[in-house]
Amino acid sequence: MKYKVIFQPFGRRGYVDEGKNLLQAARDIGVDIESLCGGKGSCGKCRIKVEEGSFPKGGIHSARDNLSPFTSEEEKSIEAGEASLGYRLACAARLQGDVMVFVPEESRGGRQVICKAPRDMGIEINPGVKGYHLKLTPPSLSDPKADLERVKVGLEKRYGLKGLGIDYSTLALLGNNLRAAQWNVTVVIWMDQEIIDIRPASLKSLYGLAVDIGTTTVAGYLCDLVTGEVLAMASLMNPQISYGEDVMARISYTMNHPGEGLDRMHDQIIQSINQIVADTTSQIGASAEEVYEMTIVGNTAMHHFFLRINPEYLGRAPFCPALQRSIDVKARDLGLKIHPSGNIHVLPIEAGFVGADNVGVILAQQPHYADEKTLVIDIGTNGELVMGNKEGLSSVSCATGPAFEGAHIKFGMRAAPGAIERVRIDPENYEISFKVIGVDQWSEQCKPEEIGARGICGSGIIDAVAEMFKAGIIDKSGRILGTIPSTRMRKTKGGYEFIIAKARETAMRRNITITSEDIRQVQLAKGALYAGAKVMMGTLGFNKINRVILAGAFGNYIDPEKAMILGLFPDCELQEITGVGNAAGDGARLALLNKEKRREANDIARGIGYIELTLCKDFTDQFALAMHFPHMRDPFPHLRGLIPEEMINL
Amino acid sequence: MKYKVIFQPFGRRGYVDEGKNLLQAARDIGVDIESLCGGKGSCGKCRIKVEEGSFPKGGIHSARDNLSPFTSEEEKSIEAGEASLGYRLACAARLQGDVMVFVPEESRGGRQVICKAPRDMGIEINPGVKGYHLKLTPPSLSDPKADLERVKVGLEKRYGLKGLGIDYSTLALLGNNLRAAQWNVTVVIWMDQEIIDIRPASLKSLYGLAVDIGTTTVAGYLCDLVTGEVLAMASLMNPQISYGEDVMARISYTMNHPGEGLDRMHDQIIQSINQIVADTTSQIGASAEEVYEMTIVGNTAMHHFFLRINPEYLGRAPFCPALQRSIDVKARDLGLKIHPSGNIHVLPIEAGFVGADNVGVILAQQPHYADEKTLVIDIGTNGELVMGNKEGLSSVSCATGPAFEGAHIKFGMRAAPGAIERVRIDPENYEISFKVIGVDQWSEQCKPEEIGARGICGSGIIDAVAEMFKAGIIDKSGRILGTIPSTRMRKTKGGYEFIIAKARETAMRRNITITSEDIRQVQLAKGALYAGAKVMMGTLGFNKINRVILAGAFGNYIDPEKAMILGLFPDCELQEITGVGNAAGDGARLALLNKEKRREANDIARGIGYIELTLCKDFTDQFALAMHFPHMRDPFPHLRGLIPEEMINL
Repeated sequence: MKYKVIFQPFGRRGYVDEGKNLLQAARDIGVDIESLCGGKGSCGKCRIKVEEGSFPKGGIHSARDNLSPFTSEEEKSIEAGEASLGYRLACAARLQGDVMVFVPEESRGGRQVICKAPRDMGIEINPGVKGYHLKLTPPSLSDPKADLERVKVGLEKRYGLKGLGIDYSTLALLGNNLRAAQWNVTVVIWMDQEIIDIRPASLKSLYGLAVDIGTTTVAGYLCDLVTGEVLAMASLMNPQISYGEDVMARISYTMNHPGEGLDRMHDQIIQSINQIVADTTSQIGASAEEVYEMTIVGNTAMHHFFLRINPEYLGRAPFCPALQRSIDVKARDLGLKIHPSGNIHVLPIEAGFVGADNVGVILAQQPHYADEKTLVIDIGTNGELVMGNKEGLSSVSCATGPAFEGAHIKFGMRAAPGAIERVRIDPENYEISFKVIGVDQWSEQCKPEEIGARGICGSGIIDAVAEMFKAGIIDKSGRILGTIPSTRMRKTKGGYEFIIAKARETAMRRNITITSEDIRQVQLAKGALYAGAKVMMGTLGFNKINRVILAGAFGNYIDPEKAMILGLFPDCELQEITGVGNAAGDGARLALLNKEKRREANDIARGIGYIELTLCKDFTDQFALAMHFPHMRDPFPHLRGLIPEEMINL
Repeated sequence: MKYKVIFQPFGRRGYVDEGKNLLQAARDIGVDIESLCGGKGSCGKCRIKVEEGSFPKGGIHSARDNLSPFTSEEEKSIEAGEASLGYRLACAARLQGDVMVFVPEESRGGRQVICKAPRDMGIEINPGVKGYHLKLTPPSLSDPKADLERVKVGLEKRYGLKGLGIDYSTLALLGNNLRAAQWNVTVVIWMDQEIIDIRPASLKSLYGLAVDIGTTTVAGYLCDLVTGEVLAMASLMNPQISYGEDVMARISYTMNHPGEGLDRMHDQIIQSINQIVADTTSQIGASAEEVYEMTIVGNTAMHHFFLRINPEYLGRAPFCPALQRSIDVKARDLGLKIHPSGNIHVLPIEAGFVGADNVGVILAQQPHYADEKTLVIDIGTNGELVMGNKEGLSSVSCATGPAFEGAHIKFGMRAAPGAIERVRIDPENYEISFKVIGVDQWSEQCKPEEIGARGICGSGIIDAVAEMFKAGIIDKSGRILGTIPSTRMRKTKGGYEFIIAKARETAMRRNITITSEDIRQVQLAKGALYAGAKVMMGTLGFNKINRVILAGAFGNYIDPEKAMILGLFPDCELQEITGVGNAAGDGARLALLNKEKRREANDIARGIGYIELTLCKDFTDQFALAMHFPHMRDPFPHLRGLIPEEMINL
């Protein structure tokens, strides 16, 4: 049995199987509804409203009874008053008849804003895949040399290339391709080892894709392998998110579904990357077959899922990965749809929880060549820290949770249009000015109705909490001081909430607030990061750090000053804190465009120390101290002048 | 619409689509009917008899009208009297209703007798795939090294193996396999380069398969890679035969059916080899996954079909193959069902028509180390000749046609049970004694009814024609002398035929004869071989040859004396003519069991000269002279005493 479903305001409609929930229905019909938890009923982001009545234009009679009953899960996210208006969670409401659904502004998905222009890295272009031009004499009865030997002799004579192999699928088409090009060809060769294509000499385009598989986002950079230029970018939500927001949840899923679970995780990543290949190549009017190599970075779990390797042993002590060094796999063996002879270079990983993404960051940032005591923070769903300098590097992995990505935060959202990304609070009168992604001006320069805020993204959360702390709205322990004289302060069941955007400034005409619980989530996340850094300083014998590098898309957007005010990391000179964007992706791009960087990546991975925080007695104590803003005891001399002195230990 | 078909005497039945012919019906139902031409109506081997009447037991009313009308093709193979009894060609008679079919003895397929025990070659066992035992310390928090690095360190420490790679599909299972074996494992390594399996140390079996892809027959030898022993053998008809008996017909087929034709040829070979893998492993109770490597020999067309390479450029001047050197391909890339990380080593080829099978023969027979002027004859559907000694080798390919395999011969059949394989004729009274495959005694020692001859196979044809020549029944020009006083002589439309087995000595109670046309076919085949050898002698400056090696399954069965009497090759001392069986298969086995032989094979292939007979003005003249028995002009001193002197040029 199928029922008719109409999604408004888009007017999208379709027939959907009985019993499917509205989130699935939306996906089937092609409507993008926000869902952070992947349909588990826990994030409360997929709120929709069911319209009642007969709608002759839609040929439909919609009633709330046409959906399964309101669940206890929904009660947590939807207040009684809203429920009586027809609000439901799309993931909980199952079809029992025709329905007309309205998707409120705040529940509409939007492509996340993560693809900023990649950094110009000044790379020496020496890619793993190169093209060599050859003009050959066709065979004759007096010279009937085989096609392959003819090509090899030509390559040796003209370019000194010896001992070349050929990929099987290129071999199978060799004769046809040579003759179609009338023996005037570009021979595409991988690592000066293996022939992977024979093309007409007139075709010059050689593309590669650098891919960063994040727990939340998969991003790809299509590069010209001749000029090194980034030609196109694309990113997608990692679809594995429907099996769990964090890495451990996904590992558990595969363990609870032996065989099939891993296949599903693997297939989802592969499909996403194939989508990115299709997206980026179509942006420049190229074909996927012109992509000859891919480099891959990702944390260890993503790395294992990508390679269809059971992640079980990663997920429990002694947290042992299947391999550390980089590996090359044929695209076809993984089901990746680039050139059939194309290669996939997966960067090395460091240890059980410090992955190829981290190697990418180091490759791009090069703390191993620095004199300064450097801290590299890569904040994604997990936080990975690397500390050290040319004397040596250490790494840790901190369970920050996804608060910095907007999850587990009442009005948290991804960095998509409508997200509040910057916040300023006037300490005199607690008045607020904020900036929304997609709107060029700050809120005070706009008419309130034109702002249309939908939630707060990671950098906005950091800003808001830091400004609240600076303005004295919260204290060092993270408590909201409910007594401050502001109409923005509200009492809630669990404490207080402070209004950042007023109802009329939002798309859904509801106040957007920061709650006591939100602040608690920020404290847990920042406490874990800080404590990880402190443990490393102890191990390395550093009493201070000279430089902080914030990697990750999120790291690029947060205000270094605000991050230090909250104490995301130990004290440091402000101008020495820099955001470097998707440095993991930069690392993948370096390895794509310069094959020497692959060797260097293996050297980094092998040389880096790894500290297992769960084994450090010190960690729990450090974590408790670091929950405070900016810290319970550590001095923060460089915050002097930024916040009132009584809030800092000097 | 489907009709019921019953095949007797087997009692096999089934429902078959209207319009299918009885040969297809038999295949669908699993009845093996002989067919050399693959259902083209030209070989006349698939004679069946349609029974008329109602058969309550079969629930069927069978009538000749239930088949399509008698065709003009059938008239050539079925005499009017037989047709009136219900005889048809299975490939020509199409279903229009239910039928009961009787398959006469001579039309029943039977597995060809080609698998004789492989020669003991005294090979030094140094295979491409070896097992290395390792007992590893499991990982711990203080030693959380990755699984792959743990294995590699172990292999380097214990065996000095460095720089190893790992096949992707082995990598994906690495963690599970190490733990299942409790870290006590055999690491299976290919060419000391690549890890291709991790198994419990208790498993010792390592198998490899040497495969000879013949135009007519595909044969496989399952070998123990540790002892070198041949554990099992299997062979099948090459199913490509239904697209043409000879190589050129199959190349034409692929050219006339672009894409799909090549796919079909390729898939058929792959399926046959997978069948051989299944057959041989089940003979010893092993699994296909325990087979880690395969070596492949075959002529250039089979080589290209096997690799799914377009053979078009092989089939026309300048007869240029896609590659000459050996190549290694992953089993999975070809769809071969052995161990998923298993390797397929395809031996090198020499030139457009001298293939990897010939390289295999030379590898096994080593004429390139000999002092003697050696002629190696590999007789299959094509005849490939190699001539020379340690000073150098030359090769040619001769279009012999399939007469020596029993095709285009009235009573020709494959070397299966019931085939006459030996013939003696008493020159005094022209009386005949013969030997049939599957019957231990010669015909004169059996009761005629118990012999059950069904046809004549290649060696029987050579024997019969040589004995007829020796007895004066045919003259030097190949003419049957119809006037000789024997009741076995019969006049036919096109000349004469001579009865070899009388009706009561046969399974189908019909005389088995040698006809004038049969002798013509033998003359064309042997003339081509002889002329090829003469052209090579001229090129190499040899005035005689010291040694003849007869390779190929057929070469093993023919009587060297009879072959020389007919003049299949130039004069040679009789004891210097030896049959060496499936030497191409021996070569594949050598390459499987000793990896040094792979290098040697490439050296042979590169070093051998190739003479394109179609470019030799001399060839046509030589061919005409060589049509005579044993030759029109060349002297055959070593036949003195074997046949009357007036028949030899001395």
